[in-house]
Amino acid sequence: SSSSPSLPVIEKETPETQRPHTFLRESDNERSPNTNSTAVRARFEKMIREAQDHVCSAIEAVDGNGMFKEDVWSRPGGGGGMSRVLQDGAVFEKAGVNVSVVYGVMPPEAYRAAKPLSSEDKPGPVPFFAAGISSVLHPKNPFAPTLHFNYRYFETDAPTDAPGAPRQWWFGGGTDLTPAYIFEEDVKHFHSVQKSACDKFDPSFYPRFKKWCDDYFYIKHRGERRGLGGIFFDDLNDYDQEMLLSFATECANSVVPAYIPIIEKRKDTPFLDQHKAWQQLRRGRYVEFNLVYDRGTTFGLKTGGRIESILVSLPLTARWEYDHKPEEGSEEWKLLDACINPKEWI
Amino acid sequence: SSSSPSLPVIEKETPETQRPHTFLRESDNERSPNTNSTAVRARFEKMIREAQDHVCSAIEAVDGNGMFKEDVWSRPGGGGGMSRVLQDGAVFEKAGVNVSVVYGVMPPEAYRAAKPLSSEDKPGPVPFFAAGISSVLHPKNPFAPTLHFNYRYFETDAPTDAPGAPRQWWFGGGTDLTPAYIFEEDVKHFHSVQKSACDKFDPSFYPRFKKWCDDYFYIKHRGERRGLGGIFFDDLNDYDQEMLLSFATECANSVVPAYIPIIEKRKDTPFLDQHKAWQQLRRGRYVEFNLVYDRGTTFGLKTGGRIESILVSLPLTARWEYDHKPEEGSEEWKLLDACINPKEWI
Repeated sequence: SSSSPSLPVIEKETPETQRPHTFLRESDNERSPNTNSTAVRARFEKMIREAQDHVCSAIEAVDGNGMFKEDVWSRPGGGGGMSRVLQDGAVFEKAGVNVSVVYGVMPPEAYRAAKPLSSEDKPGPVPFFAAGISSVLHPKNPFAPTLHFNYRYFETDAPTDAPGAPRQWWFGGGTDLTPAYIFEEDVKHFHSVQKSACDKFDPSFYPRFKKWCDDYFYIKHRGERRGLGGIFFDDLNDYDQEMLLSFATECANSVVPAYIPIIEKRKDTPFLDQHKAWQQLRRGRYVEFNLVYDRGTTFGLKTGGRIESILVSLPLTARWEYDHKPEEGSEEWKLLDACINPKEWI
Repeated sequence: SSSSPSLPVIEKETPETQRPHTFLRESDNERSPNTNSTAVRARFEKMIREAQDHVCSAIEAVDGNGMFKEDVWSRPGGGGGMSRVLQDGAVFEKAGVNVSVVYGVMPPEAYRAAKPLSSEDKPGPVPFFAAGISSVLHPKNPFAPTLHFNYRYFETDAPTDAPGAPRQWWFGGGTDLTPAYIFEEDVKHFHSVQKSACDKFDPSFYPRFKKWCDDYFYIKHRGERRGLGGIFFDDLNDYDQEMLLSFATECANSVVPAYIPIIEKRKDTPFLDQHKAWQQLRRGRYVEFNLVYDRGTTFGLKTGGRIESILVSLPLTARWEYDHKPEEGSEEWKLLDACINPKEWI
């Protein structure tokens, strides 16, 4: 049971009792003090840690009962993370908000797969840096939607055998909504907040990233998306780096205003067993997407990332009924139809 | 969203209102009447259809309430199958027993991956035939174990551009037990029946296929197996074909005596919420194995097999708690320990 030779190598994590001031390596600062790269790494780490605090406070406030439990971990060679999980709250069944700062080494084949090079380039192992915030929030009430968001920054150093070569960097992420029932005003509100965040930077962002989201969260074997989308982008580096750092910050800051008002509105809506069963079936689809298609999950499982942090995205409970088909025209059918045929919500 | 070019091509299925006498193509009989190959295909189909009847009758008898619902389907170019599912019975939460007879075409790369050839061989597309029975039985009571079994026969025709080349054939399959709690007498009984079936053919079979099973049902990212094993073999063709057909038949016939006595004994055992929650967590592991590692499932999802038949293996309900660790020495811990460190049961 060895891992594929073309996958990155990541060391095993160690539990820590205290939050460090930073997960960045001191050696990075010594090696290249005050470079732009060090500055972007540090500012991105600060941003995702602030976003984690901000989202967790908002979730605890709206839940009113559950509290996040924190696990801090580090890796011997540098890097680490904080997983925060709230389980079995008053409003949330399971809410996870993780930050991680990871150093590793990509085998040349993996690097080539990620960033096509000309056939003359034959790099040695490529050191990389990846930092991100990742979160899935599963409420109990079947009328309250699940939210996922993830923002990440990735850098490669020069290959070890070509120290003068330029660093590569890129941003990725997105925020998407997965309800079991459609309340049009909720979906419109959610997409409007995403669009506002995008429009501050480039009018092409929202339409482009909305479509990218619909394409990405596609459960191919079902012919349907897992939810009603939002925004998604990956490998983004064809804009100014400062601009993309601001954009990722704006997106992360938009999570609370996009989501919490919907939870406030739906958390106490009365429901029947049949509504809960449908939510559970849709959570089954969530599991299918995450385990079969999601890049972060499948990458993490294969490279030996922290399993409990990776799989905290799975719902507390899920359901699979054989050949379940909602009645045409029903509320369940309307949701399914919107997952099969993505709509423009605004 | 196109499928990988090196995966087999399988046509879309059509629902049928009646069970056909055979799913074999008549044209196969015309092309090569009374050949040994046609005979093995026909006898294997007969065997798996009889096994389906036999297992379904035994399950309905022990359930006492639930009835199997049957879906028959065919493919325009030949082949088809029958899915039988019992859902929400008195004893079984979900029980699926499927037979399928599939014709398709393997692209040369897929054929080479399955059956390494010398580098001089450059076959064109390779027609194939695959028939099998596949079943997962999930009881409600947390002290009653889940059972999975699957027996299959595979043949390739000569590549279309090399009509004289020899056909390839092989057998695969196995039966394995996945309890949430260990009753040693149950596990011993189950493994003894598997060993008896194996010993009728070759004394090396049980130890070899028992280890193969422990290796196959490994959830790598957890470092644990999904259950307590049984037997598993694949790509078996280095024995007499008649002998392997008899062996697969013996294995399929052993399912009822290996499993039903355990269900009789455990189906009404009183249990607490905590036992049910642990069963649900183990069912979460079952989902992880099937969606991430199981060859049949991942192959089926990628090649456009009948989704509802493929995913009937998933439990009705499953659960994921963050960082759940059973107390050392507890019954839950003993099960987990046996999944991490496979044992010799007999």
